[in-house]
Amino acid sequence: MSQPINYPDGFRVAGAACGLKPDGRLDIALIASDRVCTAAGLFTTNRVKAAPVLYDQAILAAPDPQIRAVIINTGSANACTGTDGLARTRQTAAWVAQALGCEPESVLALSTGVIGLPLALEPVQRGIAALSARLAPDGWPAAAEAIMTTDTRPKSASVRHPDGFTVAGIAKGAGMIAPNMATMLSVIATDAQVERALLQRALFRAAEASFNRIVVDGDMSTNDSVIALANGASGVAVTDEDRLVEALQAVCVPLAQSIVRDGEGATKFVTVHVSGAPDEASAMQVARAIATSALVKTAFYGADPNWGRIVCAAGYSGVAIQPERLSLWLLDAAQQPAIQLVERGEPLDYDEPAAIALMQGPEWGVRLDLGLGKTHTWIWTCDLSHEYVTINGHYRT
Amino acid sequence: MSQPINYPDGFRVAGAACGLKPDGRLDIALIASDRVCTAAGLFTTNRVKAAPVLYDQAILAAPDPQIRAVIINTGSANACTGTDGLARTRQTAAWVAQALGCEPESVLALSTGVIGLPLALEPVQRGIAALSARLAPDGWPAAAEAIMTTDTRPKSASVRHPDGFTVAGIAKGAGMIAPNMATMLSVIATDAQVERALLQRALFRAAEASFNRIVVDGDMSTNDSVIALANGASGVAVTDEDRLVEALQAVCVPLAQSIVRDGEGATKFVTVHVSGAPDEASAMQVARAIATSALVKTAFYGADPNWGRIVCAAGYSGVAIQPERLSLWLLDAAQQPAIQLVERGEPLDYDEPAAIALMQGPEWGVRLDLGLGKTHTWIWTCDLSHEYVTINGHYRT
Repeated sequence: MSQPINYPDGFRVAGAACGLKPDGRLDIALIASDRVCTAAGLFTTNRVKAAPVLYDQAILAAPDPQIRAVIINTGSANACTGTDGLARTRQTAAWVAQALGCEPESVLALSTGVIGLPLALEPVQRGIAALSARLAPDGWPAAAEAIMTTDTRPKSASVRHPDGFTVAGIAKGAGMIAPNMATMLSVIATDAQVERALLQRALFRAAEASFNRIVVDGDMSTNDSVIALANGASGVAVTDEDRLVEALQAVCVPLAQSIVRDGEGATKFVTVHVSGAPDEASAMQVARAIATSALVKTAFYGADPNWGRIVCAAGYSGVAIQPERLSLWLLDAAQQPAIQLVERGEPLDYDEPAAIALMQGPEWGVRLDLGLGKTHTWIWTCDLSHEYVTINGHYRT
Repeated sequence: MSQPINYPDGFRVAGAACGLKPDGRLDIALIASDRVCTAAGLFTTNRVKAAPVLYDQAILAAPDPQIRAVIINTGSANACTGTDGLARTRQTAAWVAQALGCEPESVLALSTGVIGLPLALEPVQRGIAALSARLAPDGWPAAAEAIMTTDTRPKSASVRHPDGFTVAGIAKGAGMIAPNMATMLSVIATDAQVERALLQRALFRAAEASFNRIVVDGDMSTNDSVIALANGASGVAVTDEDRLVEALQAVCVPLAQSIVRDGEGATKFVTVHVSGAPDEASAMQVARAIATSALVKTAFYGADPNWGRIVCAAGYSGVAIQPERLSLWLLDAAQQPAIQLVERGEPLDYDEPAAIALMQGPEWGVRLDLGLGKTHTWIWTCDLSHEYVTINGHYRT
């Protein structure tokens, strides 16, 4: 999903290798704005929050934060690291502030990597020096690469809006991905001029339609964060919320999808639609149960149209579904109905070889109609493969 | 876990091969009592219930059910099979009743296998004829073998009570196992004389301490059922609830554990303890989140003491844990503290090679202390391996 990036004005960006990853790959990134940004953040709802999450939340809770930069390290999530972990995040921000000539509380920090491992400060200090020397408007691809962990591809997206401003974003994901507010790590930057409260509302809405609709393994991270920065360098002021949401979505949706496409061990990108639901919350609850089920996801992997597992997951989702009202379809890559499997609770005599052939493709969908209402929603998910087990059985070794 | 079985008096049992499994293995079982039994049942809470579950629930809802037998088929779960599925369960029961010379409503039915596949009646009819000819007091091992699906070992347990009665049980499990009321398929028979309401209460309590404490993959089946039969043939009347619970537990606990030990692809049997909880419900909620997490279970598989994943799962469990109060231990096979990893939120400098060595063993535990109260509970779970993916990616093929 890495695309040519339209660079927003007034941002300088870099990625560097400082030894946080053992093999010399890029492992630390800095996104800096030449002028003060308004900033918005969405963070994990996990009760266990990483030190940088707590740090950023405190900064963004201030009456008028003057954000200038976001520093992102890999190698350590700096989570479950106690008071010492928070001190290390503060030290990191202080070094960045020193390098940029701003206040420490103008610097946000994000971390990703192993939980419980202390953040090694010596490489971070060296990394910040290297980053400062490299900051450039076209540093986005290096930054996208530097924040990868088990990702196999860097993830970036951008849009140049007809109104004359640009939005660019990078993200990392791959594992520990569940649909909940702020489900991974991403930074979105725009040179539009946006009032802070508006930016926060629009980011929330854009995430609801993107990052909050993805499932890889159902685990919610201690570090999930989405940060949006708006520095106004384009001279274009955006005051219309819907327009801003649309612009942010144009970046957030491809980023979110790219996280699922690059899910740990994923071989298939599957959209789980739930229609005929009484309301959005019920629809999402059923979609999440299906998209998170190990049995459903292994059947996706094996291209096995074992639709009973989908119906079964809906049955234990907690939503008061009525089995005799359920209908189920396989959808093609364009998300159009291709093969109907169940009609109002009764299994149909479908073309099984065709169903298997469809499911062997890299991208398709399923739609479960609950027959209870008119709401339709969807989640993007992937299959559960041998490779997922390999990656996570030996992540640290 | 298959043990020599103490056979309860007045029951005759058989397993037979009738072609429901393609390879000639035993695939249908019958447990019959020479006299009328009191019966109790616990069934899946999935909204999608298999035909035999609906059928049994209706029979057991009658004022005074006169149960004589339980017929169990593999090959088809007879779930999501609509009205036709219910008719096939009725036909199955009618054939058994005819063979035993009792009323159809004296026969309970259980099914396990693929969801959505019609139950093939011709093999079932043939199987019932074969079973009738074979019924014998010592038929339990054949029945335990006949109800296996992806199980690699038959599961049975029994106890001869000092008071002069016997309890025997068989179970099948392996996949689609989550902790909730009635999480698999089991029949428990006793020759004690037990009043019906007492049997139901005691079965519920025994299941809470056994079958409801196991997790393989977190999927809750459409067919999960536990049935208890008491035929009084020993002449011993049991009226004390605690004593009956204890006797049932003596069978249900090893059966439940054997399901986890034989979990699909499982290489390790892990007990997840949660202590210091404010109440039982919170403790179970945290234990379930940990025991169900794909990241935790793959780390168990890889013998990776990546304890952050355990703390992380507790953090998203929905319980209001306080990260700074969490302590975490690895426990040895005797469930005694062996290595402490976290002390009140602070990671400890533990002996990592020793932790890896411990986790490479087939049986051990973890204990997370929440530091919030005095309640302690536990769940039995297994790891998530490559073999789980192999089994479930190609279950039907």
